[in-house]
Amino acid sequence: MKQFISVHDAGDVNQLVQEALSVKQTVNHQSHLGKGKTIGLLFLNPSLRTRMSTQRAAYNLGMNVMVVNLDKDSWQMEFEDGAIMNSTKSEHIKEAAGVIAQYCDIVAIRCFPGLVDRDWDYDEIVLNSFLKYCKVPIVSLESATRHPLQSFADMITIAETQQVAKPKVVLTWAPHIKALPQAVPNSFAEWAIATGAAVVITHPEGYELDGQFTEGATIEYNQDKALTGADYVYVKNWSSFADYGAMPEVTGDWLLTEEKMALTNNGKIMHCLPVRRNVELIDALLDGPNSLVQRQAGNRVVAAQTVLKKILETL
Amino acid sequence: MKQFISVHDAGDVNQLVQEALSVKQTVNHQSHLGKGKTIGLLFLNPSLRTRMSTQRAAYNLGMNVMVVNLDKDSWQMEFEDGAIMNSTKSEHIKEAAGVIAQYCDIVAIRCFPGLVDRDWDYDEIVLNSFLKYCKVPIVSLESATRHPLQSFADMITIAETQQVAKPKVVLTWAPHIKALPQAVPNSFAEWAIATGAAVVITHPEGYELDGQFTEGATIEYNQDKALTGADYVYVKNWSSFADYGAMPEVTGDWLLTEEKMALTNNGKIMHCLPVRRNVELIDALLDGPNSLVQRQAGNRVVAAQTVLKKILETL
Amino acid sequence: MKQFISVHDAGDVNQLVQEALSVKQTVNHQSHLGKGKTIGLLFLNPSLRTRMSTQRAAYNLGMNVMVVNLDKDSWQMEFEDGAIMNSTKSEHIKEAAGVIAQYCDIVAIRCFPGLVDRDWDYDEIVLNSFLKYCKVPIVSLESATRHPLQSFADMITIAETQQVAKPKVVLTWAPHIKALPQAVPNSFAEWAIATGAAVVITHPEGYELDGQFTEGATIEYNQDKALTGADYVYVKNWSSFADYGAMPEVTGDWLLTEEKMALTNNGKIMHCLPVRRNVELIDALLDGPNSLVQRQAGNRVVAAQTVLKKILETL
Repeated sequence: MKQFISVHDAGDVNQLVQEALSVKQTVNHQSHLGKGKTIGLLFLNPSLRTRMSTQRAAYNLGMNVMVVNLDKDSWQMEFEDGAIMNSTKSEHIKEAAGVIAQYCDIVAIRCFPGLVDRDWDYDEIVLNSFLKYCKVPIVSLESATRHPLQSFADMITIAETQQVAKPKVVLTWAPHIKALPQAVPNSFAEWAIATGAAVVITHPEGYELDGQFTEGATIEYNQDKALTGADYVYVKNWSSFADYGAMPEVTGDWLLTEEKMALTNNGKIMHCLPVRRNVELIDALLDGPNSLVQRQAGNRVVAAQTVLKKILETL
Repeated sequence: MKQFISVHDAGDVNQLVQEALSVKQTVNHQSHLGKGKTIGLLFLNPSLRTRMSTQRAAYNLGMNVMVVNLDKDSWQMEFEDGAIMNSTKSEHIKEAAGVIAQYCDIVAIRCFPGLVDRDWDYDEIVLNSFLKYCKVPIVSLESATRHPLQSFADMITIAETQQVAKPKVVLTWAPHIKALPQAVPNSFAEWAIATGAAVVITHPEGYELDGQFTEGATIEYNQDKALTGADYVYVKNWSSFADYGAMPEVTGDWLLTEEKMALTNNGKIMHCLPVRRNVELIDALLDGPNSLVQRQAGNRVVAAQTVLKKILETL
Repeated sequence: MKQFISVHDAGDVNQLVQEALSVKQTVNHQSHLGKGKTIGLLFLNPSLRTRMSTQRAAYNLGMNVMVVNLDKDSWQMEFEDGAIMNSTKSEHIKEAAGVIAQYCDIVAIRCFPGLVDRDWDYDEIVLNSFLKYCKVPIVSLESATRHPLQSFADMITIAETQQVAKPKVVLTWAPHIKALPQAVPNSFAEWAIATGAAVVITHPEGYELDGQFTEGATIEYNQDKALTGADYVYVKNWSSFADYGAMPEVTGDWLLTEEKMALTNNGKIMHCLPVRRNVELIDALLDGPNSLVQRQAGNRVVAAQTVLKKILETL
């Protein structure tokens, strides 16, 4: 594996998931594959799960880890080609990324979207600048449009628990108090579709995702109808793609409840966390026996370790 | 040892101190007990000594270390059961602590009191939430009401230097410019009492500590009388427990001086640091031959390493 | 090597550079020289290259690393002797430095100048306080008046690329939007002079560096004349030393361009980074074949690793 920024780097998703399940058997047996190798974990945004699970995965492989909060420890960055740098931005990505590549064997980066300029976000300017100027394997720790390590962990979680060959997987929009990126739903959709699951996406009008991520899924505006017979219900808020970053007014109550879950096929609950309890879904579901959220989080180490292992094998 | 949050986890304190003195002989000889194990050091508040000494102790045991400034690197946390999470708090402790437990073999956490709501602080809501939801051994790096690694290091320091079997140990309140927690004096009192020392606590009216920590100690409002014949003088400011978090007006001058120390039995000076020079006590005492403050700080590594060793032995 | 805070700790500079070139051959082959040893990297200011290159160098030597952002993770420090500490500064350097020495085998520190009080800065109060109270080898990660790891990396870069025995090395002032320290030019000048290069320093009137760093160099106010025949052109902004920290008005255009570089002997471009593109020099020079800036940055690991190796050998 030469990089890991989307499902397109995963090869055959089901095969990669099987490989992860085998990594999971020995996840905590420290390996020597990464001995003498250093990963840089670069954060332009806050992180808890991603930070800790990726660091743990790297340690499990014997790697050294450098964590840099690029937003706080270092300098503000310029991304525009040809810029006259007379503003608050002290360093151009060309220099920063080129330099970092010389200090790390692998670079992993978190760069959220601004949710203001859709082209800027969907062109993945930050991530692509690193891909261009940082000449070592790049791993996304969630970029403007995707969160592939999360989605990979989600697929591992489904594979571990699925009781039918082609489960019905429903991605349902949930309420929230502020505008969130589309990265998690985009990414979940493309990964779930790639596994061959029957993917249904349900959300209010105005919250359609970018079609490039949802090809092969069914879009169903009626939440009840979508949930009916579901084996997995992935709960997630996101802001509008069409009216970019906005939160168009919503008709009906999208809070996920036990009544709604009664429509499912004893459906399992999934969420990438952090979750707004009793805003997105109710406590009873999160704390109930069908909740997979902690298992998903645990599988973040497995996903990261599988990816790092496959990259280390090519170094 | 299954956790380390107070003197009640220490077993026989004098025996634990002896074990620490034996650990100290080989403190820097890197061990392999912690190989492949990871400790998460979580900070909700600033730290210098605790951060560095615990990290060093973990390294000395061969562990991997993840340092997370939960207040800055991650999300604000909700602690209330059943909360409708529509405020600025993005993640519930249930999720966060459960997740962290999956990434760490041991979790150490610093969580200061707010000094506003006494029940909230003295119920140790944050620490107890971690104990409840984070199913790995928990080590306190100072919580709302106690600072056990500091107190353990203090007891090691006394054991190394004491010249009588039952020294007179005086904890004296000192002036400060802002309201400080009671964690250090609470903790010091219960540890010193547990060693069998003759413990005297002196402070102005209104600064009485919670009685649960001081049972077995003598409370003496006259500082001169308290200091007379002291073998050890532990200097520390704290705010009021009764008028919670307030700084009631004080009669007399509580700054510790050489004149006052002349009353002692050539008493040794102790302080947990950071210290306000010439506000709590004068330079000449801190820099003099009877000052143990640097030795106390050095013993922080020994205390942490002993605790981590005993926990690792149970994993 | 007992410390590394200036060229005066380097011994014979050319010999040290040769040693570095030999370290470079095996820079990434993890050594065991630092096994069981811990370095503390202390930052009072932001850092990217220095932070990551020194951490990588320490890992390459098998060391453990503690990174502490003293400005954010810990307490504000007092440096004045005899201070009555009733302000916002919670800890005196005497305590902090003494404590840190007990947790680390080597301490490296970044402490920029305030550019307000020249005596305070040029007396190197912060660095010298660490040298006085922190009784382990100290490495400067850039102090108020010098940046020796940068300069060492610069000398390695010149040694690798020079085509004549005594190259003409020109340090040229460049425009900037804010007042910068003199640490990099001071340091570069004294290191370059020590190698025996023909050093010319060019800058507008009012930007003269402190003479202690430039003895042996030629000062030439005419940039064109200075650049003529140059083998290396080191581009850097700095603020006034005479009118301390000010940015006196400048006559003429000091932006480095291809036209100006045409005067040189096919001169190589150097810069310590971060660089303001098209403010200090134009894109075409930074991105052109004669730019050494990425090589300089890469050599930061080599410089740090050589220094740490030589210090470890004395422990």
